Amino acid sequence: MARQVDVADLVDRARRHEPRAVARLISLVEAASPHLRAVAAALAPLTGRAQVVGLTGPPGVGKSTTTSALVSALRATGKRVGVLAVDPSSPFSGGALLGDRIRMQDHATDPGVFIRSMATRGHLGGLSWATPQALRVLDAAGFDVVLIETVGVGQSEVDVVGLADTTVVLLAPGMGDGIQAAKAGILEIADVFVVNKADRDGAETTARELKYMISLGRREVRGPSWRQPIVKTVASRGEGVAEVVTAIGEHRAWTRANGEWDARRARRARTEIEAIAVETVRARLGGLRGGSGAIDALAKRVMAGELDPYTAADSLISEV
Amino acid sequence: MARQVDVADLVDRARRHEPRAVARLISLVEAASPHLRAVAAALAPLTGRAQVVGLTGPPGVGKSTTTSALVSALRATGKRVGVLAVDPSSPFSGGALLGDRIRMQDHATDPGVFIRSMATRGHLGGLSWATPQALRVLDAAGFDVVLIETVGVGQSEVDVVGLADTTVVLLAPGMGDGIQAAKAGILEIADVFVVNKADRDGAETTARELKYMISLGRREVRGPSWRQPIVKTVASRGEGVAEVVTAIGEHRAWTRANGEWDARRARRARTEIEAIAVETVRARLGGLRGGSGAIDALAKRVMAGELDPYTAADSLISEV
Repeated sequence: MARQVDVADLVDRARRHEPRAVARLISLVEAASPHLRAVAAALAPLTGRAQVVGLTGPPGVGKSTTTSALVSALRATGKRVGVLAVDPSSPFSGGALLGDRIRMQDHATDPGVFIRSMATRGHLGGLSWATPQALRVLDAAGFDVVLIETVGVGQSEVDVVGLADTTVVLLAPGMGDGIQAAKAGILEIADVFVVNKADRDGAETTARELKYMISLGRREVRGPSWRQPIVKTVASRGEGVAEVVTAIGEHRAWTRANGEWDARRARRARTEIEAIAVETVRARLGGLRGGSGAIDALAKRVMAGELDPYTAADSLISEV
Repeated sequence: MARQVDVADLVDRARRHEPRAVARLISLVEAASPHLRAVAAALAPLTGRAQVVGLTGPPGVGKSTTTSALVSALRATGKRVGVLAVDPSSPFSGGALLGDRIRMQDHATDPGVFIRSMATRGHLGGLSWATPQALRVLDAAGFDVVLIETVGVGQSEVDVVGLADTTVVLLAPGMGDGIQAAKAGILEIADVFVVNKADRDGAETTARELKYMISLGRREVRGPSWRQPIVKTVASRGEGVAEVVTAIGEHRAWTRANGEWDARRARRARTEIEAIAVETVRARLGGLRGGSGAIDALAKRVMAGELDPYTAADSLISEV
C-alpha cells in the first residue's frame, strides 16, 4: 500500500526551502511512485523560472571540482543553486576522492544549495526520464540555477545535458583521447568550453585544438550564431571560475535576445513529453506479459512462424 | 520513391544461397525500408531453424579471432555459418588490424559463410531492433548457425547477445579491469566461458577467478542448473576451438532436454515484439511533430505551466 502523502503540503514546504520536502518530492518523481502524477500536476504552474546549466566532459577533467567551484561562485552572487549529479564518478553519487567529498561538504551546510545524486547507473532510459522531473522539483522549489552534472559518455546523458539552457563542456590538457571521444557528440552541444587544469602542460595546445575544431564546425552554420567561448580554469583554486559564470550569463542574454531561449525550452518540453509517452507505452506493453497475456500468445505464434514480429507488434499496440 | 523490389524473388534466391540476395534482404530490414513488413511476412514461415550463438567480451580479448576460428571449426562439420558483427572493433565493421582482416578474407570466398557488419555505432536502440531482423534473414536463408559478435559494453548489446540460444563470454588473462567491467552484466548471461590467449601469463589466475565468481553466483540458483564450462583457447592458433564448439553443442542439448530452449526463444520473441512495438509508437509520436503538430501545441502548454508533462504525454498517446 502506498504511504500516505500530502502532495500539496510537500510542495508548500519545498517552496519554503525545506530541504527534506525537496528531497521527498524528488524521491516521489524518481521512483515513479503512485503520487508521481499528482506531484507533476502540482509542480507545473510553479516551473519555468530556474536557469538550467548542463556540465559534461570526459572522465578525469575535474567536473565535480568545477561544479563545486561554480556553486560557490553562484552563491556569492546571491543565487540559490540546485545540483543534479548523474555522473557515477561524482562525489555526490559516491565515486570520488575524499578530498572532493570534503570540498562538497561545505555546500551541504548551506541552505541555499541542494545537491542530489540521481541513481541512473545501469538504468537504461532512466536518465532521460527521471532527471527532468527532479529538475522540475528544484525549479518549483525556487532554485535560481540548476546545474546538471553528467559524464559525457552515454548518448542519453548527452541528450539530457544538451537540453539545458546553457551547456558547459569541460576538457583538460593532455587528454587527446578524451577530445577524440568527445568529438563524437559532446562538442556539438557545447555553448561554453572550459579547459580545466589550465596550469598543466598542454593547456594551450588543448585550447588551440578546440578553437580549430570550432572553426571547422562553424562553416556549417548559416546566419549569425553564438561564438562558443573557451575559458581556462584551475577549478581546484577557483581560478577562471568567475569567467565561466560570466560566459554562462552572456550565453543566457544571447539566447534571450534572439528567441533561442524559447526554442530550446520548447525542444526540451517536446523531448520530455515524448520520453514520458514512450515509457508509458513501454510500461503498458510490459503489463501485457505473463500467464494469459496477449504478448505471450503473440510470441508463441511468432516462434511457430505463423506470424511475423511486425504484425505481432501492431496487434500488441492495438491493445495498449 | 521506393525502388521496385520483388520480395518473393529475393527470398527465393536467398534460400538458394545467393549471397547478394541475402545481403539485399538484410539491407531492407536494417534500413526499415517500405518493404520491411513484406520481407518480415515472407520470412516468418521459414524461420526458427538456425542455432543462434552470441559472442561477447571486453575489448582486446580476441573476439574477432575467436569468431573466425569458430567459423572454420563449424564449417569443418559441414554447417553453413552466418556472422552478424555488431562489434565496432571487429574487422567486419572495419576497426581492426590488417592481420584479422586477411584472416577473415578466407571465409569471404566460402559460399557456406555469410558475414555482415551491423551499422549500429551511435545508433541508440538500433541494435535491439535491426539485429534480430538480420538474424531472421540468415535463418530463413538456411544458415545452420548464426554467430552474433558484440563487444560486451553497452546494455543493449548485452541484451541482444543474452537472448541467443547459447551465449559465449570471452575473457583473456591480465585483464583484471575487463573482468571488473564484465561483472556488471556479461557474466550472468554466459552459458560458456572462454579464456582466450591461454598461452599468456595469468591464464590460470583468470580461470580460477572465473570459477570462484561462478561459484558465488551459483548459490542464488535453485534446482539443477547448467554448469558453465570454462574453455581455454589460443584462438589465433586454433587451439581449444573444437572444445568451444563441443561446449556449445552440449549447452544446446541441455537446453533442448529441459525446456530452456523453448523458454529462451519465447523470451526472444517477446522482447523482439516489444522492441518493435515501442519503436513503432516512438516513430508515430515523432510524426506528430512540426508546424501544427499536436506535440508542439502540448509542449507550449507545458512551457507555460498550464499542463504537466504526464498529462501531455497521455493526451499524445491518445492520438497515436
